[in-house]
Amino acid sequence: MLTIDWTREGGWGIPVIEEFGDLAISPAATGLHYGIQCFEGMKCYFSPSDDSLRLFRPDLNMARMNSSMQRLAMPGFDGGEMIELLKKFCEVEKEWVPKGAGYSLYLRPTAIGTHPFLGVDVSDHVKLFVIASPVGPYYPTGFKPVSLFADSTNKRAWPGGVGSFKVGGNYGPTILPAKEAMEKGFNQILWMFGDDDEVTECGAMNLFFVVQEGDKKVLWTAPLSRGDILPGVTRKSIIDLCESWDGIEVRESFPKMPEIKKASQEGRLLEAFGAGTAAVVSPIERINYNGYDINIPATGELTSKVWDELNGIYYGDIEGPEGWSVRV
Amino acid sequence: MLTIDWTREGGWGIPVIEEFGDLAISPAATGLHYGIQCFEGMKCYFSPSDDSLRLFRPDLNMARMNSSMQRLAMPGFDGGEMIELLKKFCEVEKEWVPKGAGYSLYLRPTAIGTHPFLGVDVSDHVKLFVIASPVGPYYPTGFKPVSLFADSTNKRAWPGGVGSFKVGGNYGPTILPAKEAMEKGFNQILWMFGDDDEVTECGAMNLFFVVQEGDKKVLWTAPLSRGDILPGVTRKSIIDLCESWDGIEVRESFPKMPEIKKASQEGRLLEAFGAGTAAVVSPIERINYNGYDINIPATGELTSKVWDELNGIYYGDIEGPEGWSVRV
Repeated sequence: MLTIDWTREGGWGIPVIEEFGDLAISPAATGLHYGIQCFEGMKCYFSPSDDSLRLFRPDLNMARMNSSMQRLAMPGFDGGEMIELLKKFCEVEKEWVPKGAGYSLYLRPTAIGTHPFLGVDVSDHVKLFVIASPVGPYYPTGFKPVSLFADSTNKRAWPGGVGSFKVGGNYGPTILPAKEAMEKGFNQILWMFGDDDEVTECGAMNLFFVVQEGDKKVLWTAPLSRGDILPGVTRKSIIDLCESWDGIEVRESFPKMPEIKKASQEGRLLEAFGAGTAAVVSPIERINYNGYDINIPATGELTSKVWDELNGIYYGDIEGPEGWSVRV
Repeated sequence: MLTIDWTREGGWGIPVIEEFGDLAISPAATGLHYGIQCFEGMKCYFSPSDDSLRLFRPDLNMARMNSSMQRLAMPGFDGGEMIELLKKFCEVEKEWVPKGAGYSLYLRPTAIGTHPFLGVDVSDHVKLFVIASPVGPYYPTGFKPVSLFADSTNKRAWPGGVGSFKVGGNYGPTILPAKEAMEKGFNQILWMFGDDDEVTECGAMNLFFVVQEGDKKVLWTAPLSRGDILPGVTRKSIIDLCESWDGIEVRESFPKMPEIKKASQEGRLLEAFGAGTAAVVSPIERINYNGYDINIPATGELTSKVWDELNGIYYGDIEGPEGWSVRV
């Protein structure tokens, strides 16, 4: 693992790559009491095209981590230098990067407040660390579409809250509702907001719909403008790709569940999928909304096209836009 | 410190009281990534009346900690047994309980997910620990009234969120807004919610107003019913006391800032104070609302009466309601 300590007096210390092992943390550390913690999810891919290791848009992860840390009054860092450290880390750990389609080394940059002080205050000590784990294909036997329960009770985030930051406190509270949804027979939760049941996210992923409007196909997802949606790297990449493609219009506005239900009833709801680093895209086949089942064609054309394109870029088989695939 | 580990297979392990020291925590522990962490604040008081150590309504802290843990899909525990452990802990550490008015041993029961698993899922390993620190009088030279900045941008909590649980993720996001308010010359933030600027809490305290309505004095605070207000032990105790007193009516509903401003302009805003374990009561002398300063008589009659009564019960000088002051 890679660790770097920060103190208010001394700034960032010397980065160390060392054997994975327990951290010694004061029981009074702010990271254990006040949710002073944030993380990123990234992957390092082996590209058979040139035997290289590659990261995908690491600049976006570093920008988001900086923004998460600063929201929790932790220090910022130099994203470019951190990418160099991540490259070094991947190089040192290269034997852990598995080869083959769908395989990668998952990287988890994390920052926690280590200041042993029980006042709810700015942390004077911070630890940034990166751990890693080899991961296999998310869909070893082809896409496995998921079912969602549209939760009208629990809200993942709120305007004026911290839903647009990747902070720990956004995740813990989702586990119990997700467990309850699973006990009802669903895979994940669809998070709604507001009196008109706006669709925000699903599980820990951004959520996309594809709807037919006249002779147009529209890719529809919640916007970042209100500050309650996580600015996903996969989300942004899908939007960037679709904006460059013919035949699909991108719409960033809050879909309302009644609109989605209506589109489904009129046969205009063509596709739906979650998007995130772990699954890339996760096709949705059913959404239960107020007891009504909205059924969606399991894996649509655009879902597959996005999947193929992104995976192609991840593994260096497709030359993506400049700066997306970064050689270690 | 007191530590108890829990595993899904083995349940709660043997409690250990040991020297204060760093915890060995896996860098993959859920408590460091997903905000699987909650805490309580309590105090152990030395009572000169009978040379006893006392806790104040520990059953309420244990009930709230159970509810926080379960909200984060952590296991529950037996509150009564935990109080016995806390008593044992205070007895062992009795030399750390300072004597004198306003002095106490602050106790911090905390629970964190220690399961080293990066999926956002139920934690199979949990650590509950209690650390302690002697604390002195919050107001060594008499009450020090605070000024509040009514924040119209940041929201501490929301319906469908976890504002009624004492989970870590509620605290980290308040630090940056509080720092900004301090830079503007205020001590703390007054948290509002909704289009009509309902008053919810201030800083990390519950918030009370005392207003004159005709010949009635009303103690006014936000209700717990919507699930976005922390069920404070001090809050409940103040309500319980005032309900037993003549001449004051307790109202649990959301005060709206325009109503508070109007009451102030009409000379009917008599008192305002925050309430919590650390400060007990914290008189408020000024609230800045949309640039307008609401000035409040610095420390009112009821604030002082509540202060005297609660401190009397904490230290055993006043015999409070049954079960409030618990001898170690």
